[in-house]
Order: sequence, then C-alpha cells, then structure tokens
Amino acid sequence: MDIIKPRTLSGFMELLPPAQIRFERMVEILRTTYASYGFAPLDTPAIEDAQILLAKGGGETEKQIYRFQKGDSDLALRFDLTVPLAKYVALHCNDLAFPFRRFQISKVYRGERAQRGRFREFYQADIDIIGDGKLDILNEAEIPAIICKIFRAFGLTRFQVRVNNRKILSGFYAMLDLAEKSGDIMRTVDKLDKIGPDKVKTILLEDCGLTGDQADEILKFIAIRGSNAEVIAALEGYAGKNELFDQGVAELKAVTGNLAAFGVAEENFAVDLTIARGLDYYTGTVYETTLLDHPEIGSVCSGGRYDNLAGYYIEKQLPGVGISIGLTRLFYVLDEQGLLNPALPSSPADALVLPMTDSPAAAIALAEQLRCAGLRVQLYGEQKKFKQKMAYANKLGVPFAVLLGEDEIAEGKCSVKNMTTGEQVKLAPDEAAEYMKNHLNAGNCPIILE
Amino acid sequence: MDIIKPRTLSGFMELLPPAQIRFERMVEILRTTYASYGFAPLDTPAIEDAQILLAKGGGETEKQIYRFQKGDSDLALRFDLTVPLAKYVALHCNDLAFPFRRFQISKVYRGERAQRGRFREFYQADIDIIGDGKLDILNEAEIPAIICKIFRAFGLTRFQVRVNNRKILSGFYAMLDLAEKSGDIMRTVDKLDKIGPDKVKTILLEDCGLTGDQADEILKFIAIRGSNAEVIAALEGYAGKNELFDQGVAELKAVTGNLAAFGVAEENFAVDLTIARGLDYYTGTVYETTLLDHPEIGSVCSGGRYDNLAGYYIEKQLPGVGISIGLTRLFYVLDEQGLLNPALPSSPADALVLPMTDSPAAAIALAEQLRCAGLRVQLYGEQKKFKQKMAYANKLGVPFAVLLGEDEIAEGKCSVKNMTTGEQVKLAPDEAAEYMKNHLNAGNCPIILE
Repeated sequence: MDIIKPRTLSGFMELLPPAQIRFERMVEILRTTYASYGFAPLDTPAIEDAQILLAKGGGETEKQIYRFQKGDSDLALRFDLTVPLAKYVALHCNDLAFPFRRFQISKVYRGERAQRGRFREFYQADIDIIGDGKLDILNEAEIPAIICKIFRAFGLTRFQVRVNNRKILSGFYAMLDLAEKSGDIMRTVDKLDKIGPDKVKTILLEDCGLTGDQADEILKFIAIRGSNAEVIAALEGYAGKNELFDQGVAELKAVTGNLAAFGVAEENFAVDLTIARGLDYYTGTVYETTLLDHPEIGSVCSGGRYDNLAGYYIEKQLPGVGISIGLTRLFYVLDEQGLLNPALPSSPADALVLPMTDSPAAAIALAEQLRCAGLRVQLYGEQKKFKQKMAYANKLGVPFAVLLGEDEIAEGKCSVKNMTTGEQVKLAPDEAAEYMKNHLNAGNCPIILE
Repeated sequence: MDIIKPRTLSGFMELLPPAQIRFERMVEILRTTYASYGFAPLDTPAIEDAQILLAKGGGETEKQIYRFQKGDSDLALRFDLTVPLAKYVALHCNDLAFPFRRFQISKVYRGERAQRGRFREFYQADIDIIGDGKLDILNEAEIPAIICKIFRAFGLTRFQVRVNNRKILSGFYAMLDLAEKSGDIMRTVDKLDKIGPDKVKTILLEDCGLTGDQADEILKFIAIRGSNAEVIAALEGYAGKNELFDQGVAELKAVTGNLAAFGVAEENFAVDLTIARGLDYYTGTVYETTLLDHPEIGSVCSGGRYDNLAGYYIEKQLPGVGISIGLTRLFYVLDEQGLLNPALPSSPADALVLPMTDSPAAAIALAEQLRCAGLRVQLYGEQKKFKQKMAYANKLGVPFAVLLGEDEIAEGKCSVKNMTTGEQVKLAPDEAAEYMKNHLNAGNCPIILE
C-alpha cells in the first residue's frame, strides 16, 4: 500500500494527551462558571450561509473567511461567535426569554497568515446578555466578576480586568469640540502603551490636526490614574459639561460600585481611560483583560456593551453586553509559560489496575468498584512482563498503579502503588479509593482555592 | 439598513436552550463515562488536508465530503473521527503510550441529501483503544460495558448491545467452501431483518450461486438464537472444523465471559450471528446497538475490532477496537420520543434572584452565596414590575425564584418561591441553598440511579 505522509495543517492546534487534558480543564472551568451564572449553553453550526455571515461585509473578514460552494450553496465557516449569535437571536427571538444569556465555547476559523501563537482554527469562549429594547447596567457589572472568577480558577492571580466607558470618551471629545475626530483620536490614544505620550501628542497635532491645548487636555485626561475611587473622583471634576459624559461616569460608577458584593478582588480590576475597543460596535462599557507579567500579549479577554446586536437581520432593537476569551491562544501562552497549574496531574486516568492473575474477573470488578467511587480507572489487560506494565504506567503518567494478585484477592485487598513516591500499601478496595482520592484532592486544591 | 432574512442551513441542527441543555446532559454523560475508563480526550482539527482525509478514497465519501481550496491548499472537513484518529496516531506514535485510549466527541460533515432526522453536520462520540502490534481481547469485552453504562445514564433501559465476531462468520463460510463468496453472503444475510429468510435464500441461490444445501446451512446457522450460553453452545457444535472459526468462538467467549464482572445487565446484551458490519475494515468482534422499542432506527452505536488502523499513513501495525455513537441523530430520535428524562429541569438556571430593593448589593451577595453552594443562579437586574419578573421566570422555566426585599434583608433571610407549586418559604441563605438543592437532587435521581 502507498503511504501518505501524515501531517496536521499549519495554524491548526492538535495537542498530545497531557496538554489536551490541561486544555479540557480550562474548558470545564469555563463551562461550569458560565453555567453557574445562568447562561444557557449554545451550539450553532460551524457552517453558515456566506451571505448571512458577511452581512456586515468589509475588509479583513472577507479576506480571511473560509468560503466555498457545495452544490448551489454559497457557504462559509464562522469567523467569530457574535455573528452566529445575532442570527440565532433574530431567527428565534419569539422563543427566547429576554434578557437572553448564552455562553458558547466553539471553534472559529480565520485564514490568517500562520505564525507562532496564531491559529487559523481556534476556540472562542463567549458570554453575552441580550435585552429586548432595554438592558440594565447591572449586567455590565456582573461580567468582570465572572471573568475574575474564571481566571482565578485557571490558577492565575496576576491579571487585571480593565474597564472604561465609551460615553465618557465620546463626551469628553465633544467637550473639546472634537466629536467628529473622536474616531481618529481614540485610535491614536489606543497606541499610548506602545509608543508613549510624546509620539501620541505628535500624531494628535500633525495627523489629527488638533491644537496644542486640545492635545494637552487629552494627554492630561488619559493620564488619570489611581484607585477606582480616585479615577472616578477625577472624572467628576469634568461633570456638568456634557450629558453623554455624565451618563458614562454614572454607568462606570454603577459598574465599579458593586464589585465587592460581586466578589471581585481589588487588585484584579481597574478603571483605565485609555481603553476604547471596536469603534463601530461598542457604545458603553468596554473591557480588556491583561496578564500583568505578560503585557506583551495584549488583551486576552475583551468585550463591552453594544446597542444593537442583530440590526442586519431584524428590525427589533437588541442591546447587549458580552465578552470573549480567545481560548486557544490563551491556552498556548499559559501552557508554554507553565502557568496552568503544572503540578496538577494530566494523565487520562487516576489509577491503572493491573491484573496479576490468569483470570481478569477480580480485576474487572475492582476497577468498576473504584470507578463507582469517582475515580478514573484504566484496566490494563495486555499480557506483558511486570516491568513493561510499570513502564506503561510511567509513560501514561498515571498517579497510581493498583496491583491485584492471588495474595491480594485471598485477603480481599489490593496493592496501591504511588507512582511518584514508589510507596506501596495494601488496602481493601473502599479504603484504596479513599486513599487515592485524598491524594488526588490534595493535588487539586490550588485550582479550587486560588 | 437592508435586512437579510436570518436562516440556518438545512441539515444543520440548531437547538433552543431547553433542548440544548438536554443535549449537553448527554454530552456530559459521555465525557465523564469515557473519562472514567481512562480514555484521553482528543480534539483534532475539523479541517484537514483533503489528500490525507481521502487516502482511502472511494465512493460515497468523495461525493459527500466538503472540500475546498484556500490559497494553494486543498482542504476538506472531516467526515468521521476515525480517519483523523489514524492520522493522529501515525503522526504522534512516538509520543503516545500504547495501548492508546482516546475519546473524541466532535462534529463531522457529510453533504448528504437533507431529510428528516438526517444531518449534514453531526456529532460523533467515539472511543478507540489502539495497540502497538498487539491488543488483548479484554479491551473488546470492556466496550459493551461502557456503552451499557452510558445508555443507562441517558435514562434508557430498553436497549441491547449486540455482538458477533467476524472470524466466526468467515470461518463458517470457509467450512462450506464459500470463503470467496463470504462478502456477498454477508451483505445478503445482513438484510435478514428487512426482507426475511425466504428472500435471503432466493438471493443466496440466484445471485450468489449457492447450492440449496449451502443456503440451508447458512440459514440454519444465522437462525441460532438464545441466551449467550445457548448460542455459544450451539457454536461449539461446529468446533474443530476450521481454525479461524474456533478462534472466533474463543474470542466471543472471552468477550461474553466477563460481562457480569463488568456490570453489564443480561437484558442489555446479546450475541447476534447476523451482524457483520463494514466488511473491509473489521476483523474480529463487531458491535451494534438497538433500541428495542424502535428497531426501525437501526443501530445507534456500532463498531468493532480492526487489525490495522493507520495503514495509509504508516508501516507500523496498529490493531484496535472502537465504537461510535451518532450522537446528533440519537438525540434527535430520543428527544422527539420524549425518552430523555423529560422530567429533568432544562432551564439554564436553578434559581432566579430578584432584587426587590433600590440597591442590588444584597441581592448580588446572595446570588454569589447560592452559587458557592453549587447552584446555577441568575441575578435579574431589570427594572420591571413584579408580574413581569414572574413572567420572565416562567418563560425561562427556572425551578425557583428567590425574592429579596427590605423585610428579608432585615431578617437576614430570603423568600424562596417554588415556581412549579407556587409554595413560598422564607429561609436564611444557607438553608435556602440546601432547600433548593434537595428539591433539585430529588428530580435528578432517575438520571443517576437508572
């Protein structure tokens, strides 16, 4: 038979089992945390009508999208989870209860130039809350709480959810009579971290055509720093000059005001007036999330408030707020840096049961008993020498091997070998299950408590 | 703005939240059960190099596959999970521990003619165990045990995993000097359920060119029925005439011999000599699974033993055994028939917390406290009348509403309203959590115990 050399396409992540198990742990945290806030799981097709996906049209998306014909159909793979959500809500709006809260953790496709840490197929993990006509600001306050809980469950502490409000920015530029230039200005200000204030000022003067006073006011404004209370106090110094600005400050106060009640640690949250995000989409609160020790990665989780989710598909006004985690990239970065609780076991099984007798019946029953106690148990049935069985257990990375020979069966016990320490104890099956679970739970502690 | 009418492509399943929650419950059962047997999760790309996916080539697959160009690349969407597994194992074989056990629950794509209950995008839920050169028969005995556990967890009791062994069939045909016609004969015998024994005999005589004696022997053979012990006893009547046949019987005895130890109920398992399956692939044990009250659906979960997983990609001999559930179709059928524990709640939240005061702080803290107790809790922040809030709770199908007004706050309590019975009790938050969990667990019992 002719052999075709196997390969996986460039830009497509395919993990070995231990890494996949670490990835699944992140997905499980996302799923259970999103669900714990009453978000409904959603699973839309990966393929949609190309006309519908590209309703908004435009630039990068059209170039990157995977689009193809099948029969007479013009099809495309989704490039994000927001457009399919808009379609879904427009299509099913009579059957949904609003506010409609959904989470979706699915793959999306963008035919970008492949490069290290960039993927053409990648998971997004999105939550959105969609209102029918109106949506209370309280929803915008809840989002950072959810993200903080998730990042802590990932095992991270050195991260910060940064929040701003587009109305504050737009109102402020209106105060300076710069409303029409606000797009250009925000794009410039967005580069502050990368190019510094001097270069920002140069661009504001030369490219945006601002006066020196205007540029200085803007630089003074975006230099506002401090605790949430200090930043809000500084913003209130501008109060009464522009209605939109005042509304934005009121919203920011509502978002920050209940953080303690929401369980958000002070160090994981900051008001940051330099954040603007997707200029043609977000209209109020905006979020970014940065890893404090890895600012070079940029925002790993972003979103905000929008006024009209599904305007391309339906007349109904559907305001919402959402946030998206670029999961594949985040996993790639965290795993490479060893930040994903590397001490946690990443073996597919907690225990490998090794029958040491001719008949496997007792070992089969033991494995089943340990499973019922909540352990993940692989029964090893191969006819190999003991040394080879141990080599397999080691390669698998399984924390425990459970040996069952004639002696153990006669005593109604089994021998539990800790594969890390080499320690071996003979225990009754129920004791063995408790013994292993206690060890495993001890190892699991960081993920639950931190 | 021009409105584009939203639609979802024909043949692509997209569920409303309650149905999606029932679907996710099936996925969760699959994931945890597969993992409990030490299978590693695997997630391969949905897009592969078309040359690699089509290495085997041939007929229906080529017609149905979604294949397209992007840049210079000839790409295709996977049409099953076996070919990507073969590629994965061939590509990563030096990094894997053999036997390699993996599960994968992923979408696959086939551009079939769309019809009711048939999907172009659908989930398969596969397990496979791959050996390096050899693989013990014990693995083949474990597969029916896993499937039975899963189907019981789905809430089903009236199902049967049917098992046969291809070596028994091939050996038997060799005894009759019909080895070269065995393919045609098996295809004919496979129609027994549909067309009955008389028509099978006619085809065997007229199309396959068998003698009357040969056809009678075959019909007598496939008519063997009874308990596992009775069928095996009947098979042993043919012993000593053909080596392959004897080997097949020995394997079937090994597979059936430990079923009780594996925890398989007698009524959920049967030896069935009419089952053959994919003729060019399976070489030993084969499985089918039928819903006893819905034989018209055919097999909902099938698989078997194969001798060479990845011959198209690697010289290494990789025998294995696997089984696949066509999950989307199975869900569609079960949900339509109301067989998926319809009494279980399918609301995205267990409780809806309703703040009845101006400040939401107390309600935020209460919701968080209930979440920490393990409940899925939605905080309702909209400024609506009480009646509208209740209407929302009803439309959402949430089992409990938790009301928090000035009175409750003053007493350190909250009012828990059972949305089904209308009953309302005032409880401290920790009591409220226990109260709701007890009610919910009572409802959950069938899924865990049955």
